[in-house]
This record gives sequence, C-alpha cells and structure tokens, in this order.
Amino acid sequence: MIQAKGYAAQSPTTDLAPWNFERRTPGPKDVQIEILYCGVCHSDLHQIKNDWFPGIFPMVPGHEIVGRVTVAGAAVKKFKVGDVAAIGCLVDSCRSCENCKEGLEQYCTNGSSPTYNGRYKDGTPTYGGYSNIIVADEDFVLKVSDKLSLAAVAPLLCAGITTYSPLRHWKVGKGHKLAVLGLGGLGHMAVKFGVAFGAEVTVLSTSASKEADAKKLGAHNFVVTSDKQQVRGVKRHFDFIIDTVSAPHDLNMYLSMLRINGTHIIVGLPADQLPVSAMKLTDSRRSVAGSSIGGIQETQEMLDFCEAHNIVSDIELIDMKNIHHAYDRMLKGDVRYRFVIDMKTL
Amino acid sequence: MIQAKGYAAQSPTTDLAPWNFERRTPGPKDVQIEILYCGVCHSDLHQIKNDWFPGIFPMVPGHEIVGRVTVAGAAVKKFKVGDVAAIGCLVDSCRSCENCKEGLEQYCTNGSSPTYNGRYKDGTPTYGGYSNIIVADEDFVLKVSDKLSLAAVAPLLCAGITTYSPLRHWKVGKGHKLAVLGLGGLGHMAVKFGVAFGAEVTVLSTSASKEADAKKLGAHNFVVTSDKQQVRGVKRHFDFIIDTVSAPHDLNMYLSMLRINGTHIIVGLPADQLPVSAMKLTDSRRSVAGSSIGGIQETQEMLDFCEAHNIVSDIELIDMKNIHHAYDRMLKGDVRYRFVIDMKTL
Repeated sequence: MIQAKGYAAQSPTTDLAPWNFERRTPGPKDVQIEILYCGVCHSDLHQIKNDWFPGIFPMVPGHEIVGRVTVAGAAVKKFKVGDVAAIGCLVDSCRSCENCKEGLEQYCTNGSSPTYNGRYKDGTPTYGGYSNIIVADEDFVLKVSDKLSLAAVAPLLCAGITTYSPLRHWKVGKGHKLAVLGLGGLGHMAVKFGVAFGAEVTVLSTSASKEADAKKLGAHNFVVTSDKQQVRGVKRHFDFIIDTVSAPHDLNMYLSMLRINGTHIIVGLPADQLPVSAMKLTDSRRSVAGSSIGGIQETQEMLDFCEAHNIVSDIELIDMKNIHHAYDRMLKGDVRYRFVIDMKTL
Repeated sequence: MIQAKGYAAQSPTTDLAPWNFERRTPGPKDVQIEILYCGVCHSDLHQIKNDWFPGIFPMVPGHEIVGRVTVAGAAVKKFKVGDVAAIGCLVDSCRSCENCKEGLEQYCTNGSSPTYNGRYKDGTPTYGGYSNIIVADEDFVLKVSDKLSLAAVAPLLCAGITTYSPLRHWKVGKGHKLAVLGLGGLGHMAVKFGVAFGAEVTVLSTSASKEADAKKLGAHNFVVTSDKQQVRGVKRHFDFIIDTVSAPHDLNMYLSMLRINGTHIIVGLPADQLPVSAMKLTDSRRSVAGSSIGGIQETQEMLDFCEAHNIVSDIELIDMKNIHHAYDRMLKGDVRYRFVIDMKTL
C-alpha cells in the first residue's frame, strides 16, 4: 500500500477535513498519478450528504481529475512517467457485460466502480480526486494534451462528457435547435459543445442576468423562462432540450417547447421524482430521456475533440481549504462555471 | 343540412341518450356514410365525463367508425356509392403546418378537427360515430376491404392505429423484445402487431388469469407484475414497453425492465401526472415517450396491412341501448377486447 492524503467526509453530517489514507501499490497495469487539479461537481455534495443513497464513509470526493504520471506499471502501454493523464467518474467496470463490451462502461449492468463512493472488484472502497495521488488501471485513465490549460480540462471529465455524450448519441448538430436548461458546470459545457456541433443553441434561464454570459459562451439565443411571452415564443420550437438542473423542477413547461419528436434529455439528477404529463408526450410524440456521463472510449474522443477545437471549461481555481465556501456558492448557482481545486494547496 | 340521429351526452353529468341533430349536406369533396359499426373507446368515457378538459356538449362520442358510402360528392375520387369506408379520430386538420404536410395530421400544430368533441374550421361542432350517418371530406376517410369482418375492423381506427403507429415509428420488429402493458383494447392490438412485426412479445399484467388469453393472441411470454420474482426476471430485459394503461400507474417499476436505450411508449392517457425518477432514465439511457393515434396515410397503411395479414380486433358486439353496461364493464377491464356498437340497433 502507498500513503495518500486528501479531504474526506467522515460521515454525511460532518464537513470535509484533511485525512490520511492508503491506496493500492501500483500493479503492472496501473498508473500512479500525482493529482494537479480536481473539479468540484455538484454530485460531490449530493454524495457526501447521502442525498441519493447511503454512501461509503470516509468519503474522498472528486471525479474530475487531471495530473501527471509518476509511476507506470510494467504492462502499461498508453502512458509513461511524466505524461499528463486524467480520470473521470469511473475507475473500473465488469468489462464483460454487453454494455461494457460496447464501450458503454457507464451503463455496466454488473455495476461499475465509481471513482469515489464505490468499490473495486475486491470490495475495497474507492477514493476520489480531492487528494494528492491516485492509482488506477490504465484502461480507465485518459490521455490529455498539455496544450490545453490543465486546470480547465479537469471539468471535462464529468461536466464535459456528461453533456458531450448525449449530444453525440442523439446526433445533435446542424439544422437542430438545441435548448440548454441551466447554465452551470454542465450547462456551460452543453452550450460550447452544441455550438461546436453546429446546432442553434438557446439558453433557458430564470435569470435575465445570465444573458450576456450565455452569449459570450457562444449561445445564439436566450430565453427568460419566467417571462410568459418569451416562453410562448418558443412553443414547439426545439428539437432537443438538455436539462442540466439537479434541483426539483417542473418538466411540463419545457416539454411544450419541444417540436414533434423532440427529446428532453435529463443529465442533472434531481433526487425527487419528476411529474410528467402523458399528454405533453403524446401531443407531439415527445420523449423524456436520461443520459449518464460517457464510456471511456467516448471520453477520450471528447478530450481529443476539445483539443482539436480548443474547448475547455470556464473555471475558478480554488484552494483546497476553501471547499466549503465553494459548496455554498455552488448551491446558490454563484460559479462561472466550475470550481477546480488546485491540488498544490492540499 | 341533413338529419341525423345518435346517442349524445347533454352534459358531463348526464348519461348518453338518443338525440336528433343535423350534419352538413355533403359537399363536392364529401362522402356521406351510413354507419354500420362504431367501436367503444375508453376515451369516449373520459371525454363525456370531462376527465381531460371541458368538452363541447351535446357530445356524440365514437371515433372507430365503419360504414358504407351512400353519397359521394362530385369531386370525390377515392369512393363510390356502396364502398365500405371508415373514419378514425380525425375529420380534418389545417393541412398546411409542417406536420400535416408530412402526413402527421395527428400532430397538427394548428389544431386538427377530432371526429367528435371538436370543431370544424367553420367553428361548428363535430359529432362522432354513435349515430346513423356521418359526412366527411374524403381526405379523412379510409378505404376498407370487405374481406374482413367489418365490425371487427372498427376498433382498428383508434386502438389499432394508436398501437401500430408507435411500433412503426420506433421500428419495432425482429430482434426486439417488446412488452405490452395492459391487455385491453389497445393492448391486444399491440400484441397482434408486435407479433406480426416479428418482435418477441411479452404481456405485463397484474392478473395471472390473463395469461391464456395473452398466449392465444400470440404473445410469447407473460409476466405477472405483482410477482416480485417474475419482475426481477425481466430486469433490463425489454427494448420497448408499449404502455396502454389510462389509469394512474407508477412507471418506475416498468422503467427498470428496459435495457440500455430502451423506450417506454405511452399511448394510454392517464389524466394525472406520472412521476418519473430521473435516475431510472439516466441509469441506462432510457426514454419515456408518447405517441398519439396516427396520420391518415399511416392509418390507411395499417388497414391495408391488416387486410394482408388478416388482423382484426377481438370484439363483443353490443346494442346501442346497452352502452352504459358496456362502459361499466370497460371500467372493470371486463371486455375481450373491444365493445363495438351494432348501429342497426340505434
């Protein structure tokens, strides 16, 4: 075993605090990574608070990890010491179910190993990126170009792939009208990808103050959803809505904005049930769908796409000790658009 | 105007009773049809009771109409006097919106004219098939082969097309596992079409007593949804669920039965909102979709398919005066599988 340090929640009712723990000694297929940056995802807070399900404690959150390889096992092929490397939401999966075989490890039917708040196949808990080092099988480690700002790459590993994957799956692009609901970590990436894929992108927001930012991110249009006239103006208008909101919200107003065969894609994860009117669906053959992160191959494709198109996340770099302040601001939606922890400050 | 007679509800709180009313004199593009049979749809009862929205009264229900042409206007091309003809859920639409232009009149964005409880473009109310005659523009009248039992054809006009259309739209066929939820008027047609299209069809029912019937209709499998073990056996199993239930029900158990990219297609119309768990969707990139009847061209295609494959509805023929007894039995699910009114008994 090797010694690691990080920030952990000891229980759902305690704050994150420094914690020393052990990680496995790198095996032949493992890389050991010195973590440089880790993004702060809303799901980190959901999980340390047990919002979704009972977690595994102590919990070291963080699944938007960028760092540098310091050890490469004898059988490692993709990486050498000194390479930039990244880890997203998964560190393993069964690798044998029909979904894993198709590179859809995020939908592993035998249960994948999340980067934190999960377990490896041997039952030991996984610990995430709010820490100084991590060890992982190279099959679940991504290659990152050091041409991009590495701090700003970190959020691509969750916020990026979570929006990239459904836009690719539903082939959103030229000729499509795409609405992005919620302009946070995921939403701002959905805008960037939607624009890069050629769609006409509209940001839907309750707050008129976000219009300038939305346009700066590349959005073509902006609709204030508290303005009834603006909402009427986009009735039956969009082919797709990508819904990044993880707070409870009423889908039915948004469903009316979809044209025939339109799809409302949920990528945020409200803990509560979402009431859906059957008639809003049958009315125009609409769908409500859900999508979860992305597979390893697609995550690499996304990172390569970002390198080719110079896409990164807009971030605020923070010190590790300021994580609670960051959470408070995240809860208020006061972040443009992702906090990233500078792991030098651990 | 011409004189017609039928059964009408004078208000949402009164029973259906005989009523004399007027229909328009056939114009050059109209056919006048002597109604032979009219199917009894659950939506008839929903609408005379204002379950969905305030209706137009007096209301003559019925949108599963088969009859014989008695008058053909001078410009009518498809029909001559004596032909068998049918009318489904629509008697007109705007004919100019993008959906109408694609033959998707059921999704007319300017508001189509339902066969009853609707209005023609001139504002006069439409009256349905619980009557002796009907007059309609030939563009909304279907051709029917008299090789089939005409009484058993009637339910194809709503129950038939409502299940045929989504199965075609989502290209359900060979290699797919299709579940049919609810074995009533729509459900039994979904089984027949699913089997005809080559899918492996499973009926999901709360009642074990329906198994023999399901198999007789052609279903390959049967799952009693109150049996936890049977439900576990179909976890992540189906590619599609076609949900014909119009009573309130919890979708989330059924969503777990869908494999990756699976689609739960709602064709029944519960009046209440359906609570959907976001995680059940994101978990396997599942969708909840809705579909409504079908366009005129597709309805004709469905009728032609039924002629070629000898598919009709399983019906119980009733006298007009027994409609309330039929409604009572329909509410209890006690019908195999569609009541059809013999209009001779009006």
